Amino acid sequence: MTNITIFGTGNMGSAIGAILSGGGHSVQHVNTSTQPGAITGEIVILAVPYAALSQIAATYGEQLAGKVVVDITNPVSFETFDDLVVAADSSAAAELAAALPSSKVLKAFNTNLGPTLVAGTVGPNKTTVLVAGDDAGAKSALIEAITSGGKVDAIDAGSLKRARELEAIGFLQITLTVAEKTTWTGGFAVVR
Amino acid sequence: MTNITIFGTGNMGSAIGAILSGGGHSVQHVNTSTQPGAITGEIVILAVPYAALSQIAATYGEQLAGKVVVDITNPVSFETFDDLVVAADSSAAAELAAALPSSKVLKAFNTNLGPTLVAGTVGPNKTTVLVAGDDAGAKSALIEAITSGGKVDAIDAGSLKRARELEAIGFLQITLTVAEKTTWTGGFAVVR
Repeated sequence: MTNITIFGTGNMGSAIGAILSGGGHSVQHVNTSTQPGAITGEIVILAVPYAALSQIAATYGEQLAGKVVVDITNPVSFETFDDLVVAADSSAAAELAAALPSSKVLKAFNTNLGPTLVAGTVGPNKTTVLVAGDDAGAKSALIEAITSGGKVDAIDAGSLKRARELEAIGFLQITLTVAEKTTWTGGFAVVR
Repeated sequence: MTNITIFGTGNMGSAIGAILSGGGHSVQHVNTSTQPGAITGEIVILAVPYAALSQIAATYGEQLAGKVVVDITNPVSFETFDDLVVAADSSAAAELAAALPSSKVLKAFNTNLGPTLVAGTVGPNKTTVLVAGDDAGAKSALIEAITSGGKVDAIDAGSLKRARELEAIGFLQITLTVAEKTTWTGGFAVVR
């Protein structure tokens, strides 16, 4: 059993919490709009919008030192809906890693639409979480926590540099969904 | 019936040719290592490696004026296997469009592994070709040509700017396949 803390109580935070609880893990939900107590998780999942990451890093940086910190954001520009707001050669996860140099930052869940985490399926396929990061032990721990309940699958997608590609997939999936080319229960599935 | 020219006679060129022939279209295959005659297709698919694009644009630019030209490349650095060789805020398709200002350049097929075009399936899913470009008529013509045989599906993935995201997907899919996280008959499937 792993102790996991989830910041954010929206659709994504709830869906991720259900997957992890279903795997027998202990989940602490933190609502950032109230005053949180101590962060008890060894793995901390930031299920918040991109814009909230810098504030969380500034406020909780010391408490997050040594922990696995998971960025799930898609830093889409909601003004243009045609760009990401991070630098083209960077990613939200790379920015978070720079802001939390003592944490083991991973990218995960940003290529999964919420309903596919709830259902455990993307059409006829099992939902697969893509996990990128530079710390092999941190990736293994997260993948084990995600998959132990058997509801969804998870794959090591490479180094944290691959967060750039994961954020591109998340972005394109959102644009396809909003354009009604695909649906919220579909999108990109991973087939082994 | 549409007249289509395919540069390149490798796995991708052959698979794409079979899909288009199967839809009742007339396909001219051009082998760039021999002296080609006139390009007869209204749609010209460049099923060649990224490195060959600039030479083709230089040699055939005038003949390609006014035509729909389709870039299928994934400009992966085969030195590092950790980067694309195009600028981070650009794409191979954007470079080709700049080199062929009188052509209607589209990005397509780069998110499809060859075996999934041959089989028509990605695991339990029908293979879907993602098509990006700035000319709506050109996109419609290519999507119609791809789908008329019924073997694979095709979706309008947005403006040519989205080639950046399509190339990110193609790149990540290749790295996952080479790392044996996924297989050549799997990868990313599109679910509606």
